[in-house]
Amino acid sequence: MAAPFNYDIVTMTPEEISEERRVFGGLTQSVRELNEATLRTTVDAADAEAITAEIDALTARLRARQIEGPFGVAITQEGQVRGHGNAVVGLRNPHAVPLVIERSGDGRAWSSFELNGLFEGPPTLVHGGVTALILDQIFGEAAADGGHPGMTGTLTLKYRRGTPLGKCSAEAWIDRVDGVKTHVLGEMRDADGNVTVEGHGIFILPRWAREQQAAEATPPRYE
Amino acid sequence: MAAPFNYDIVTMTPEEISEERRVFGGLTQSVRELNEATLRTTVDAADAEAITAEIDALTARLRARQIEGPFGVAITQEGQVRGHGNAVVGLRNPHAVPLVIERSGDGRAWSSFELNGLFEGPPTLVHGGVTALILDQIFGEAAADGGHPGMTGTLTLKYRRGTPLGKCSAEAWIDRVDGVKTHVLGEMRDADGNVTVEGHGIFILPRWAREQQAAEATPPRYE
Repeated sequence: MAAPFNYDIVTMTPEEISEERRVFGGLTQSVRELNEATLRTTVDAADAEAITAEIDALTARLRARQIEGPFGVAITQEGQVRGHGNAVVGLRNPHAVPLVIERSGDGRAWSSFELNGLFEGPPTLVHGGVTALILDQIFGEAAADGGHPGMTGTLTLKYRRGTPLGKCSAEAWIDRVDGVKTHVLGEMRDADGNVTVEGHGIFILPRWAREQQAAEATPPRYE
Repeated sequence: MAAPFNYDIVTMTPEEISEERRVFGGLTQSVRELNEATLRTTVDAADAEAITAEIDALTARLRARQIEGPFGVAITQEGQVRGHGNAVVGLRNPHAVPLVIERSGDGRAWSSFELNGLFEGPPTLVHGGVTALILDQIFGEAAADGGHPGMTGTLTLKYRRGTPLGKCSAEAWIDRVDGVKTHVLGEMRDADGNVTVEGHGIFILPRWAREQQAAEATPPRYE
């Protein structure tokens, strides 16, 4: 897909990328499970304090070597966007569900996933803002999949009913393209397939990104 | 504030609540720091795998005693909503920023907070969906603060510019109340005070919650 930002190029072999996915994807998934256990635990205070101290020690070990600042986004040599830090889909982000998003190749994106108590708002229900977070990501991926990557310009969501925690799915598709504005429609569904939230988004490639693209005599080649 | 749901009542002394905040709030904050360190670490694979094994062991210790299912929401004996599991503000939720939200008492809510790389979308910028997640929570708190608690009915956001990661603030206020619909306006600001996102939300108390409230001859007393 076209890159709307001036991404770094990752120069790793496929084997290195696969190993990174196994090791650091595995670390991140373990931390996700720790998050959920932290939320639900009822161990006594002494145990909780001992575990807190051990967590602090592990954090210090991880911080012994780290990148500066946020994770950022890069492009692989094969031209794939590498959003490992992304708050919704990031392989390396413990907050990410993570969503595994499928794409049609012509402007449609969808995903099935499970939301646990970490995503709760009203009792037993998905937080309304979490639904917005997920739909924003899927809407943007639908726009990009149709060849129109951009940033969220507007997002309008209608909440039809509560979304119970558990299995959910979401889907988005390009409705129409109007100059620099790509209109996307989409919806969230609960485990029974009921539409719980309907949405409309407009995605826009920022002017500075358009200028950057225009300044490139030839598209970047990722080789 | 009026309780829109049939919450459990927490029967803890103020001292027990304070101790729980210190111990389990502390555990959760340590896990938040582990999340951020996990995202940014560049330790070698052997270290990452050893740390993963230690995290899995801590998760097992936390799971030795835990509540069933999601955290839920309760009410203290003083009538305070206790949303410790909430995805945005929850003391016990490692995903929560957590936002500390201030309220005017007449339908206005605001918060200042810092968003690190765990909340990234485009490089160096807050994920557009994270902005939606935060505004949804603050909008709902403004509605509740004005005596009109409810669930998100619609949420409309206009993204004026990217929100850089770092210090941010958000504010929301009741614009008008139209029967069961409470209209809320609000905005997100960056560290320099620029409005980055403007929003409008309609919050609605679900019919089943209105019926439940109407069925109570007298308001619940939390004592």
